[in-house]
Amino acid sequence: MSRIAICAPATPITRELAERVSALAAEFPSLELAFHEQCFVEQGHFAGADELRLAALLDCASDPAVDAVWFARGGYGANRIASAAISRMGPAARDKAFLGYSDAGYLLAGLYRAGIGRSVHGPMPMDLRRDGGEQAVRRSLAFLAGEPIEPDHSLAQRPVVAFNLMTLAMLCGTDLMPDLAGHVVMVEEVAEHLYAIDRLFFHVTQHLGGIAGLRLGRVSDVPENDRPFGAQPEEIARYWCARAGIPYLGSADIGHDAQNRIVPFGVAASQRLP
Amino acid sequence: MSRIAICAPATPITRELAERVSALAAEFPSLELAFHEQCFVEQGHFAGADELRLAALLDCASDPAVDAVWFARGGYGANRIASAAISRMGPAARDKAFLGYSDAGYLLAGLYRAGIGRSVHGPMPMDLRRDGGEQAVRRSLAFLAGEPIEPDHSLAQRPVVAFNLMTLAMLCGTDLMPDLAGHVVMVEEVAEHLYAIDRLFFHVTQHLGGIAGLRLGRVSDVPENDRPFGAQPEEIARYWCARAGIPYLGSADIGHDAQNRIVPFGVAASQRLP
Repeated sequence: MSRIAICAPATPITRELAERVSALAAEFPSLELAFHEQCFVEQGHFAGADELRLAALLDCASDPAVDAVWFARGGYGANRIASAAISRMGPAARDKAFLGYSDAGYLLAGLYRAGIGRSVHGPMPMDLRRDGGEQAVRRSLAFLAGEPIEPDHSLAQRPVVAFNLMTLAMLCGTDLMPDLAGHVVMVEEVAEHLYAIDRLFFHVTQHLGGIAGLRLGRVSDVPENDRPFGAQPEEIARYWCARAGIPYLGSADIGHDAQNRIVPFGVAASQRLP
Repeated sequence: MSRIAICAPATPITRELAERVSALAAEFPSLELAFHEQCFVEQGHFAGADELRLAALLDCASDPAVDAVWFARGGYGANRIASAAISRMGPAARDKAFLGYSDAGYLLAGLYRAGIGRSVHGPMPMDLRRDGGEQAVRRSLAFLAGEPIEPDHSLAQRPVVAFNLMTLAMLCGTDLMPDLAGHVVMVEEVAEHLYAIDRLFFHVTQHLGGIAGLRLGRVSDVPENDRPFGAQPEEIARYWCARAGIPYLGSADIGHDAQNRIVPFGVAASQRLP
């Protein structure tokens, strides 16, 4: 049996969603899902105050009976508790996978920097709400159940990380930012104007010196602006990579969508849970 | 006579706006306004391609007959040409004031870092379009004409800078970012969700160690979110300043509005053009 603890470091989910995810998890008899009560707390923008979200995350990470911590959804808020959480995590956290993406990237980054557990980019319970969401959530459940993921041979044994572009931009230079020298850095974005994406690339490429290269995931739900930007996301990524001397390594199969791939941080040799 | 050269490092203005600003400038007989033709070029998002905007900025900055360079408006784009412009500026740039705000902050920052000329935060020609815009533009014209600005005694001889919060966040850690140790840092924001403002403060406060303190300008046109954030801008600023050990020094009279104050970067002793 693998026990998966689910908490919400940013914004809440409903009990109904948790029940649907649990029902889907029945396809994987080796999995036992435990939704922390904090997932359902709503306080202003957040799934409870900082202290409550922090305590729930530490409950999940510090329980020796838990094999993996799955973040319920993104939104905004994990950055407010990430440093405190990481500094208080006990030895039981060190063997766990931590799975999520988008706003959860603040935690994945900080944990990866601290060398605690295994940071993994991938679908979250909230993704069930998407078109094709069952497929996305099933992908994470299969991974959590120990099924191997399709290896990404293009990585050629180079370590990899995957981030939402805005999340990565906000991480740059902070106490959560890991050293990404030699890494393939995958980024994706959702619901940002193209000029804002250009601006984010201006920022992040100046912080990513020494990486092996950058790969661009999907850039979706770009709002219409009052004027066309004049360049597509791939051109924007290529432009700023070239300016910063960063190899542009093509597309990445990640994004705020049902196809969002599972990307364990680090080297691909261990792309399967123990 | 003071000759003021106007160019548009980001997005364009119309000839009609330029004419209205020139008409207003007639109130200041010592001023001669020269709108560069590049101000009126429209190419996709920008006031001309990067090369054109760069050339126009260098035309203005390198002309010994020009006393000040006034940026026509913000939008987005100055960051794409700022480093190239600053590296190519000749000796004639060193005695000039450079006046603007918002996206023009990339240039103000880079010039201040490089010790070239005098970076000044203040209203731009495009502000004429605002309610009370004549008053805003007249404020900048008076400053450009050499009239003294009301001293900000609260600065107590400490050096000051003023930025749009997003612009400052994108500047952090880049080759345009000045050393702000000992500075009072004023920030303002427009048209960002409160959660995004919280996120920006998370980022910038980790980059502002050693500043004298932070002052918050106006945060305007905050879009409605699907849920209330639960904290107002001042609480957000105070929270992140406290976390980072940065003194919060109260409000600042800057913002994307007609009241936007003129803030010459550096120490207040020289808050008047020579």
